[in-house]
Formats: sequence, C-alpha cells, structure tokens
Amino acid sequence: VVNFVLGFYMKFKKIAIIGVGLIGGSFGMCIKKKRIASEVMGIGRNLSRLNKAVKLRAIDRATIDMKEGVKGADIVFISVPVKTIPVIVKKILPFLKKGCIITDAGSTKAEILKEIEKMLSKNINFVAGHPIAGSENQGAGNARPDLFKNAFCVLTPGKRINKSALKQIINIWKRCGAKIMVMDPKEHDRILSATSHIPHIAAIALMHVFSDLAGIKKEAKLLIGGGFRDTTRIAASSAEMWKDIFETNSIEVLKALTEFKRKITKIESLIKNKDFDRLNKILKHAKEVREAL
Amino acid sequence: VVNFVLGFYMKFKKIAIIGVGLIGGSFGMCIKKKRIASEVMGIGRNLSRLNKAVKLRAIDRATIDMKEGVKGADIVFISVPVKTIPVIVKKILPFLKKGCIITDAGSTKAEILKEIEKMLSKNINFVAGHPIAGSENQGAGNARPDLFKNAFCVLTPGKRINKSALKQIINIWKRCGAKIMVMDPKEHDRILSATSHIPHIAAIALMHVFSDLAGIKKEAKLLIGGGFRDTTRIAASSAEMWKDIFETNSIEVLKALTEFKRKITKIESLIKNKDFDRLNKILKHAKEVREAL
Repeated sequence: VVNFVLGFYMKFKKIAIIGVGLIGGSFGMCIKKKRIASEVMGIGRNLSRLNKAVKLRAIDRATIDMKEGVKGADIVFISVPVKTIPVIVKKILPFLKKGCIITDAGSTKAEILKEIEKMLSKNINFVAGHPIAGSENQGAGNARPDLFKNAFCVLTPGKRINKSALKQIINIWKRCGAKIMVMDPKEHDRILSATSHIPHIAAIALMHVFSDLAGIKKEAKLLIGGGFRDTTRIAASSAEMWKDIFETNSIEVLKALTEFKRKITKIESLIKNKDFDRLNKILKHAKEVREAL
Repeated sequence: VVNFVLGFYMKFKKIAIIGVGLIGGSFGMCIKKKRIASEVMGIGRNLSRLNKAVKLRAIDRATIDMKEGVKGADIVFISVPVKTIPVIVKKILPFLKKGCIITDAGSTKAEILKEIEKMLSKNINFVAGHPIAGSENQGAGNARPDLFKNAFCVLTPGKRINKSALKQIINIWKRCGAKIMVMDPKEHDRILSATSHIPHIAAIALMHVFSDLAGIKKEAKLLIGGGFRDTTRIAASSAEMWKDIFETNSIEVLKALTEFKRKITKIESLIKNKDFDRLNKILKHAKEVREAL
C-alpha cells in the first residue's frame, strides 16, 4: 500500500474507536475500507460484542482496556452517549501519545466542548464533531462502510483549535464521503434542537398518548398506518443516548419546545374556532416546505 | 371467466370509483386484477388524469359525467376528501340503480355517516369504510393492486345497515387482501385521532418550527437527519384532505391534542427541573411500546 504522508492521502498508524456501535462501527469500516489507518482498535465494555465487530470488519482488534486501546493512537474517535464523552476524555488523557487528536460524534456540542477544553494539555487536540447519520437502528450489526456517504458532518472547533488537527479530521470525514460543515457549537445546538431534538420529543409524546389509549382500546394497535410508523420511528432509539442529548442541550431544547407548543396551540385554536381556511394555509405551507427538502 | 353468483366469488357487473387517486386507483387495480367486476368505471373532474388511470389499468373507462358514470353500477366507491363524500352522495342518489351499494374510504366516519344516513332511500345502501393504507404519495400514479394486502380496512356500519350490503363490501375488501375490522364509527374516530390525526398535527407543527428557523439559518436545511425526515414525512400530504379530517373529527382531535400537550408539558417540566432519571423512564417506555408494534 502506497503511504502518502501528507495531505488528503495521509495514512495514520493507529486509529482507536471508543464505542463501536452504529456510528463507531461504520466509522471503523470506512477507515478500513479506505485504508485511512494501518490499524483500527476498537474499545468498549463488552468483549463479546467487540469481537463481533471484529468479525464484521468494523475494527481490526478489540480491547476493554482503555489504556492499552488508546496507546500510540494518532486519532481517538469517541462515539458514546454525550455525557460520557468528557468522562472518557479525562480517563484516556494520561495514556495518549503527544500530538494525538481526539474527535467525537456527540449529538450536542457546546457543553461538552467547554468541559473538554478545560482538560486538554498543549500536546493533545480535540476536534468536536457530529456526523448526521444516526438512526434508531443501533449497534455495530447495523454499521456499514458507506453510512457517511453524502451525509453532513458538522465540526464545531472551539477557539483554541489546532488548525492542523482540524484539517486532518476534515480529511478523514471527506474520505468517508461526508460533506463537511464547520460551525459554531452553539449554532449547531440551536439548529439541531429544531431538526432533531424537538422531533424526538414529539415522537416520544405521541407514543405515550398512543400507549395510554392502547391500554384501554386493544384495537388501537391494529389501526396504525404508515404515517404513525414514520412519525414515531425514532421513539425506538436509545433512551440513554437521548437523555444525555436533552440534558446537555436543555436551554435550546426548552426554547424550541416553547415554539413547538406555540404552533400546536395555534392549530388547536383554529380547530376550536372552526377557522379551517387558515388551517388549510398552515397545512399547505408545511407541505410546501416539506416537499422542498 | 367463471362467474360465481353468490358468496365469496360473487362478480359484479359494474363498479364505479369516484376519485381515482392513490386509494381509488389501487382499489380499481385490485378489482380488475381479482376480476371482482366486469367493468370498472372511473369518475373524476380531470379527464386527462382519468385517462392516465385507464392507461395504468386502474379503471376500464373514464368519465367526468357523474350521471353516466354511476349509471347501472352495483357498487359506487367514493374516495375523495371527507367533506366532499356526502356532497357526492347527494349528487349521485337520483342516478343510482335499485340495490346499489355506496361505500367510501373517508378517514373520519361518525359525522359523514350521520349526514349520509339522512339522505338514503330504502333501495340504496351505504357501507362506511376506511382502508388504513393512505400515504403522502398521492395520485393514481402511486397506486398499486396490492396496496390493501394485509392492511386493515375498518368498516363502521350505522344502525340502519343492510347486512347483505355489509357482507358484500367485506367480501370485496377480503378479496383485495385486507383484514376487516367492524367498529363503531365514534370508536374509529377516537382511535384514529391518536394513531393518525395528532401525529399529523405534530408533523405540521414541526415543519413550521423548522420553517421559521430555516428562514434565519440557511444551514438548517442541510442539518436534517433520517429522524426529521421520518417524523415530518406526512406533512407533505394533501392539505385539502387533512383540513377535512380535522373539520369532521374536531371533538376527538381536540381531546387527543389536549393529551398530547400534557405529555409535551410533562417532558418540558422534567427537563426544566433537571429530573433526567424520570425523563429516562419516559424515553424507555416509549421505546418499549414502539418496539412492540
């Protein structure tokens, strides 16, 4: 294998992935497929699950020993529930080699970036990232090497960012087929509250309304169409992961939730007041915006 | 073709379909494929669209003349926005042959059943129906003969139902592969408010929150994942159709909307009070119920 040392075709000696699920596993598959690193080490808590990820060619080797796992790594990719990311950074810092770049796939950025920046020494870089490629289908079993192809990957560097580190992480994501967006972490969290976090709360609330009804009307479970299935699909996502998202982005989520409730209340009052012409306009506007996506 | 006159293999001379869209077109395709009628007549407002439906083998012949279209029909299937159903019934009544069965595919049942029952003479039967097979993909171009296969079709006969007429409509749907549920119209409307109408309002409200944000943050349009796409897919449905659903089921929709807002407010207060353990339980319950579907 030709090993270009600089620029786009740079090849790393070792990339460590902490958390080999859908995102971590797909990242590993992509690194291996594109030969971005000579070795992909997978780190997790469950060795038998990790060994399955080895069989799936998501990682080359597996360990549950954090120290051994990150030893000598050029890049450490952390893909675990958001609140656990800074905890892991703290744990691994003493074992990282000089110049190591830590990056992550956390769904919220401002709070953890602030926390992690406090811990870093000069020799270790952190590039905060969020590939928009999650799904309710969790686990390395659902991973695929092209998961990030044409997906957006948002990078939210802090003020202390090392430009070379940022460039290297950008290059890796580009080689995985992702489209890069560099953005302020607070901006990211604000936008994602509307495009991801509030839709999730809506799906959860819909499931609870449904669950209450299904408890007294057994037929409800049968009278479900494609609309309900689509709208509530994300409610099957990891509770642990989403709890962390709401906890680390509570201010933006609460703001967006106020907006969402305002829209619901508007629709409610139009139905109450039998103003179906204006309701029709609201439905049409939503249809136009949705079709334009 | 062997023409069994009675029971399951009964074959009709003429079935008229008023409104040849996704549902009407799929119904026609199925009638033709299963040879349930010798002739399928399509009736609509736009002759060129109807002629396309002929080419797609959704109907045998097309007309925009209601009188000509329903003349001699054994069955008239009405698949138009809910509020237009009683209007059409009123229009066609003078032209129907004795013993004709009218049936429909309206998404709400109690209000229109009440309205239509008032108009009927002894010689004409109405069997209210709702095949749960709609989608945001409208038009006969999206129709397919197996759309109703394994889908539930709810029939909501009123007190004056003619049992033979009900049996005949049940047989037709069964031959289309649908699973039949016979149910009180008010029960239907109550259940569907939770499984269909409130999810639709949630999707519409999410699109409006998104549209407001996208107006000031252009990046929002790019930072959309599969979750948002799924949750808001139904917002692209026909505004006219949905306006009618909310108008004809306003009482149940408002009740369910109150429940939905209560759930949203509960989640909001848990985030405000940083009670993420209880939020986690709410997320887990939703996940369990969703996964069991």
